[in-house]
Amino acid sequence: MTDIRLATRSDVPQILAYVRELAEFEREPDAVVATEALLENALFEECSAEALMAEVDSAPVGFALFFHNFSTWEGKKGIYLEDLYVTPSARGQGVGTALLSHLAGIALDRECARFEWAVLDWNQPAIDVYRKIGAVGMDEWRIQRLSGDALKKLAGR
Amino acid sequence: MTDIRLATRSDVPQILAYVRELAEFEREPDAVVATEALLENALFEECSAEALMAEVDSAPVGFALFFHNFSTWEGKKGIYLEDLYVTPSARGQGVGTALLSHLAGIALDRECARFEWAVLDWNQPAIDVYRKIGAVGMDEWRIQRLSGDALKKLAGR
Repeated sequence: MTDIRLATRSDVPQILAYVRELAEFEREPDAVVATEALLENALFEECSAEALMAEVDSAPVGFALFFHNFSTWEGKKGIYLEDLYVTPSARGQGVGTALLSHLAGIALDRECARFEWAVLDWNQPAIDVYRKIGAVGMDEWRIQRLSGDALKKLAGR
Repeated sequence: MTDIRLATRSDVPQILAYVRELAEFEREPDAVVATEALLENALFEECSAEALMAEVDSAPVGFALFFHNFSTWEGKKGIYLEDLYVTPSARGQGVGTALLSHLAGIALDRECARFEWAVLDWNQPAIDVYRKIGAVGMDEWRIQRLSGDALKKLAGR
């Protein structure tokens, strides 16, 4: 039986460890520059994101990190799931679905029109799960990212 | 010369008109269920999103609507541009780039690591502009969306 609860400050080291494991799975092991201090500030001071912890027998087995996005078509905010991760030894027991289900409940409680996230196009096992729960792939859309020197140049700095 | 300023409550009717024009361009003319009341609440009460207006000779020519997302890799919030629109008669004069440049400045002022948005994969003129300013296409990622009955079902309601 999976328990889902809101993260607290003491979960930050575990969250950062999971973020690093997830980056490895996503074939970007060196991409994580976040620190415990940055995550603690974001989750519990600035509140720019929120996190859920999944536990089995009081031991952590996964997490979800999310924030609110906004749809101009709906005129309402939504839930955007940035990270979903289940530790390998706990997979296949419905932990991921329990996290997604809990997030769907938060979305409804907060009157969100949509619950969204992104998946890597080669992660077919995940895509299969998402289709099974009724998620629609917005396959015409491509995310664009500006950072570093290009961001400064565009700002004229 | 394009002037960029923060939207105010009196801009809401113009913003909704632009949202509808953009939905038509995106081949989803009936997708907009947002109302002026919903947009005014989101932009000026809940503050779940922010908007910039572009003007030439004090007349509106376009807008940008954005909110903060969050990167677990960076441990920092970012700027996510939900809508960018320039009215057809004002295109080709750098209005869109002026809005993007202003947003890049906001991203730097707020210590954001990234400035992101999504583009339709058939909108090559826009993609060409984004490549020119140094934006990277995150082409492996596919956005997933859950809403309506599927969202309720996943939440167990």
